[in-house]
Amino acid sequence: MPNPGGRPILVLAPLLLLLSSATPGAQSPAVNPARLQQRIEGLSVFGRPPGGSFADGVSRVAYSDADVAGRRYVMDQMRAAGLTPRIDPAGNIIARREGRDPSAPPILFGSHVDSVPNGGNFDGPLGTFAALEVMQALAEAHVTTAHPLEMVVWANEEGVAYGNGLDGSRAAAGQLHDGEMDQVWNGVRRADAVRTIGGDPARISESRRPAGSIHCYLELHIEQGGVLEKNGAAIGVVEGIVGIDRYEVTVRGVANHAGTTPMPDRHDALVAAARLVLAVNEIVRAEPGRQVGTVGQLSVTPNAPNVVPGLVKLTIELRDLSAGKVTRLARAIEDRASAIARETRTEISIAPTSHHEAAMAAPLLMEAIERAAGTLGAPALRLPSGAGHDAQMMATLGPMGMIFVPSAGGISHSPKEATGWDDCARGAAVLLQAVLATDRTTVR
Amino acid sequence: MPNPGGRPILVLAPLLLLLSSATPGAQSPAVNPARLQQRIEGLSVFGRPPGGSFADGVSRVAYSDADVAGRRYVMDQMRAAGLTPRIDPAGNIIARREGRDPSAPPILFGSHVDSVPNGGNFDGPLGTFAALEVMQALAEAHVTTAHPLEMVVWANEEGVAYGNGLDGSRAAAGQLHDGEMDQVWNGVRRADAVRTIGGDPARISESRRPAGSIHCYLELHIEQGGVLEKNGAAIGVVEGIVGIDRYEVTVRGVANHAGTTPMPDRHDALVAAARLVLAVNEIVRAEPGRQVGTVGQLSVTPNAPNVVPGLVKLTIELRDLSAGKVTRLARAIEDRASAIARETRTEISIAPTSHHEAAMAAPLLMEAIERAAGTLGAPALRLPSGAGHDAQMMATLGPMGMIFVPSAGGISHSPKEATGWDDCARGAAVLLQAVLATDRTTVR
Repeated sequence: MPNPGGRPILVLAPLLLLLSSATPGAQSPAVNPARLQQRIEGLSVFGRPPGGSFADGVSRVAYSDADVAGRRYVMDQMRAAGLTPRIDPAGNIIARREGRDPSAPPILFGSHVDSVPNGGNFDGPLGTFAALEVMQALAEAHVTTAHPLEMVVWANEEGVAYGNGLDGSRAAAGQLHDGEMDQVWNGVRRADAVRTIGGDPARISESRRPAGSIHCYLELHIEQGGVLEKNGAAIGVVEGIVGIDRYEVTVRGVANHAGTTPMPDRHDALVAAARLVLAVNEIVRAEPGRQVGTVGQLSVTPNAPNVVPGLVKLTIELRDLSAGKVTRLARAIEDRASAIARETRTEISIAPTSHHEAAMAAPLLMEAIERAAGTLGAPALRLPSGAGHDAQMMATLGPMGMIFVPSAGGISHSPKEATGWDDCARGAAVLLQAVLATDRTTVR
Repeated sequence: MPNPGGRPILVLAPLLLLLSSATPGAQSPAVNPARLQQRIEGLSVFGRPPGGSFADGVSRVAYSDADVAGRRYVMDQMRAAGLTPRIDPAGNIIARREGRDPSAPPILFGSHVDSVPNGGNFDGPLGTFAALEVMQALAEAHVTTAHPLEMVVWANEEGVAYGNGLDGSRAAAGQLHDGEMDQVWNGVRRADAVRTIGGDPARISESRRPAGSIHCYLELHIEQGGVLEKNGAAIGVVEGIVGIDRYEVTVRGVANHAGTTPMPDRHDALVAAARLVLAVNEIVRAEPGRQVGTVGQLSVTPNAPNVVPGLVKLTIELRDLSAGKVTRLARAIEDRASAIARETRTEISIAPTSHHEAAMAAPLLMEAIERAAGTLGAPALRLPSGAGHDAQMMATLGPMGMIFVPSAGGISHSPKEATGWDDCARGAAVLLQAVLATDRTTVR
């Protein structure tokens, strides 16, 4: 296969080799489900509503006191597992376990522990403590891999603070923009926030990892959707993280008296906007596939019961693994918007506000995850990740793979977010097997 | 004709009689267009934007310093015309001109001088100074009518302050509710605001006029819509002031992640609301007539680009002269809402929030206005008033008639609000003739 971009490509060793232990005399490593559950429950107290329980979810927004305390708990658990965590200038927590080959690039895996306000206890913590289980299981089984292993807890994945997200992994990918450290949120400069979690904003560029410097990146995460549950799958094999295009739409009509302006004389911006909301829904659903399109934000001016709306602003968000499909959908929506503007005698302008490329998973890592699920007897399903993850940044540095486990009812970013403890343990076991399989692969 | 409600009904005397002067030796009274224009321009400086001109409109919100100064200017002009203005406990400015028959009830006419923020110079002032022209023209022509005449400048017609409107006329109609004087707006208790314009909140019930205590009520006003202009009519004969029904609609869906929730699994409250917005428009336009229906206010929760909307609140407002039609439209909208809720798997609840009865003009006053327009050679058109006016309150006390003159471009509540000075003068002349015609009628 041609490899024009010069990116490393993994070639899997045969399955039998993978299942053999890496070190002579080593036992077969296994994750500890009870310990995994205990750690997730242990972390949940940091940011828990006063007087609440595990089921009441968590508010552990990045850089908050709860985040600082939660990260301290994670580092204590890492030390208890024999690791020596360090904090990089971007605030990422990293622990390394050396391999047999000192010249080999590390296998990187992990997740995050910050949450949205009123979030759940699985989005981030599961992948974090599953990574710790991998480290600890290998140590307990006296297994030394060929590649060094690095466990990472990324800073500010959610982006509730400072509104962008994937902060730690963006710093590692060299995609933290100039000037971001001067942003102010909740009265706090971002540079000071980074210091709060032990980072060093002046040296943040040192967090950067060069492309090709990792063997691969792996992450276990809850699905945050209902596809696995609906299809009776225990393991999701992520095909990639969808690209996200956002547009800001302005619909200009003429505000006028709702009593004195006859219906045929109106230029009603909300009637035009309503037609556009339905057009987005219809166009996105018209073709097969898993693409999604959302009008999530809409505001009306002057927004009074007795005034014909003169101005509506709304957002359109399109997501799919295929950039071509997103572009095609956007063009169809633009065409329809022109027709709606003509028919409603309004003006509609559509401006792109952000464009995030899709990040594809490495096919050989998908196969490795699928095989690992197979050896555990867990039905696996390939699916795109509709949500963004730190893994998309790591995909710019090397091969990336993600493992999903089911979210009960597809609910996430809510105290009701839940994943069965069996599913959690199964996900961690698949992560362990995928790390071992990856360690036996050749990069060329 | 049966008269089950016991309301007084006007019977017009023949037109020839109407055009004869009321007093032996009197001249033919006529309004003074230049003086009318001067007074409207004179008032416009109170509330004008700093450094602006007449074309920059006015912000003369009731009870503001500009309103107090503007009212003082009006009273000065009334005194200059030989009248003795008084302020009633509700803050209405009233001046009386005695008639020949001391036992006859007064003919009441006038308008208001308060404005919306960034309003125009014709909405209210035209009717106010046209009323003053009627008083002054009769005095100059030495005409004494049979009925006493009362000119009135109503307090807080717009209702920008305290959010209700028609304050002065509601007080006169006994429809100012208990407790309204305790309301606070912009940090000022309403009782104190009423004192600011010379009212006496403790004695406000004394502003009340009993039903049947007026011979009739007449008001000249700008149309605030584009119907007259579109139809080439110079005078609008108001058939009545439409009834207004308002509803608050709640659309409940399920807020969810816009990336991870497949299109078929969504319960998108905004998609449902968009269908309802279009249904309101379609249902209202489906039948002939001048009814209007508006969704003017809409808000989305949580209102983020990346979250499927879980909750939408919106208002529906329906207006028509016929209460039966409004009810029929509302029922059709409710039926459609049920179908939309079913099809979009959302819940839609529609709660009525306010109901204002239509106020019909007295047919004989419409005829008198039509005849007066005819004698001036001004094309007249019957039409409903889609906007509310103090006249609707007066319609509860006696026969009511309203005269409209064209609004350029149908624009109102805007600095661009404009009515040609010829149209203003024509409207004032029609008001004068209508007052004289009414004076010659019999109430039975």
